[in-house]
Amino acid sequence: MPIVVVVGTMAFDDVKTPFGSVDGALGGSATYASLACSLFARPGIVSVVGSDFPEKHMAMLRSKGVDTGGIEVKQGGKTFHWKGEYGLDLNDAKTLRTDLNVLEGFKPVVPDAFRGADFLFLGNIDPELQLGVLSQMKKRPKLVVADTMNHWISAKRDKVIEVVNEVDIALMNELEARQLFRTPNLRKAAMEILALNSEIAIIKKGEHGCIAFTRNSHFACPGYPLENVLDPTGSGDCFGGALIGYLAKTRDFSERNMRRAIVHASCVASFNAEGFSVDRLKRVKMKDVKRRYSEFRGFVRF
Amino acid sequence: MPIVVVVGTMAFDDVKTPFGSVDGALGGSATYASLACSLFARPGIVSVVGSDFPEKHMAMLRSKGVDTGGIEVKQGGKTFHWKGEYGLDLNDAKTLRTDLNVLEGFKPVVPDAFRGADFLFLGNIDPELQLGVLSQMKKRPKLVVADTMNHWISAKRDKVIEVVNEVDIALMNELEARQLFRTPNLRKAAMEILALNSEIAIIKKGEHGCIAFTRNSHFACPGYPLENVLDPTGSGDCFGGALIGYLAKTRDFSERNMRRAIVHASCVASFNAEGFSVDRLKRVKMKDVKRRYSEFRGFVRF
Repeated sequence: MPIVVVVGTMAFDDVKTPFGSVDGALGGSATYASLACSLFARPGIVSVVGSDFPEKHMAMLRSKGVDTGGIEVKQGGKTFHWKGEYGLDLNDAKTLRTDLNVLEGFKPVVPDAFRGADFLFLGNIDPELQLGVLSQMKKRPKLVVADTMNHWISAKRDKVIEVVNEVDIALMNELEARQLFRTPNLRKAAMEILALNSEIAIIKKGEHGCIAFTRNSHFACPGYPLENVLDPTGSGDCFGGALIGYLAKTRDFSERNMRRAIVHASCVASFNAEGFSVDRLKRVKMKDVKRRYSEFRGFVRF
Repeated sequence: MPIVVVVGTMAFDDVKTPFGSVDGALGGSATYASLACSLFARPGIVSVVGSDFPEKHMAMLRSKGVDTGGIEVKQGGKTFHWKGEYGLDLNDAKTLRTDLNVLEGFKPVVPDAFRGADFLFLGNIDPELQLGVLSQMKKRPKLVVADTMNHWISAKRDKVIEVVNEVDIALMNELEARQLFRTPNLRKAAMEILALNSEIAIIKKGEHGCIAFTRNSHFACPGYPLENVLDPTGSGDCFGGALIGYLAKTRDFSERNMRRAIVHASCVASFNAEGFSVDRLKRVKMKDVKRRYSEFRGFVRF
């Protein structure tokens, strides 16, 4: 039985960055988030793939302790496909093509063994699916964290706001926060998130790190100064997955431990950007995370 | 006799931001930098204005302890004029118009009383003028800090590199660093700056704060989370002026004190963005800076 239920996409990605490219590589928000989470706590994925999804990916996930029992395999269907490109500014991907495939009409069914989980990560997927998964839980989980994406803010703003209203921690990147609340000011956007009932608003800023706002505090976490970024795809998902994983492991929701969770999540996200697809992520060990965590202390001391 | 010599522009600025606009307002890199510096140490400006430059601006600068004896007033000339606009992303100004006016053909003459100063700030101006001022100092100052601007990197890249080669601390913003060294990676750009003989490379990131690199350390300073940014013009110059001012006051170039100087500089720069032109900057008191400085400690603790 998983400790953390992760809903999101599973995908084949074609990604081009200034440093290389991959085609048909394993991707998707649930994939990245659950692998990142697995460093700290046992995740279970709720998602859908087509019958073209290779068993080796499932086996890799299981080898990391990911429960794949909630992944629907749609016979004859094709796995969701995303094609994107990054320019020299690696903070923002340009989507070149999206083929929803099996995601179209997907109605997630949360397996019975998952419904009592204390931790729920609503990864980047249609906000109606996020709400659908939340409603299937037997009881309100102890902690619900939600991520979103600019596409859903444009297409289903009201539903995105409904999600933010239901969760404990809302994650979004700075463009999304500005877009959702129609303000250039990140602090103002964060205050709007908190006014919507989230306890914590975390604004992700790519290589610039992130800022976490509560009603009466502010935490600035720098980005890790990577010398060799290859592909930032999925780093935001990794951040969310590692964050909830750390909180599930420690079960301490104090402000101090939240900050530690955020720094751990930043470390995991930074490793992910050092490789294409999940190449680097799947090789990260806890000792790597711990080493980077202590480097962070040195970066901010004054 | 000033402790810190500041070379840079003095200007009339027309600025439009999403929050308002001003026309013919006091601006220029030397103006902002010297006002910011004056919170910590006595600055002396080397610059040029036209006979249209009002005495009230000179009087305001002197009232803050700025030595105006090195400002050439070119009779019949018009003061440098800059017109710029900011969109919702306040991190980057769009230059709409630049009238060099008296800056054209300007040959700075460093007054004799300034030539023995221990601290020199080469604010944003033609890099040949920056080098000209440095060469007029009686002895190599104890600390030379240089700023630059994308315009000079495009127009006189070799001279910008010569400046970086001569100074102790090189400041530039992230776009400039990427442009100067033709890499998207800030860490790599910083390493190039250090390879050019600067002891410290400080990459300014606007609202995201800044990163300081030395050969074996990395300091991430977050931006202050402003609720009401009105106009970021000059905040980078304020950062530089306050940085050298703090170092001139404390005369301690240790890594630890450098970090404190950077946080103080970030505080002063953040105040500047709360008003148009120098409206907020000229009202900042040391107790305001100290209050914000202690807030920064809380922002980064984990």
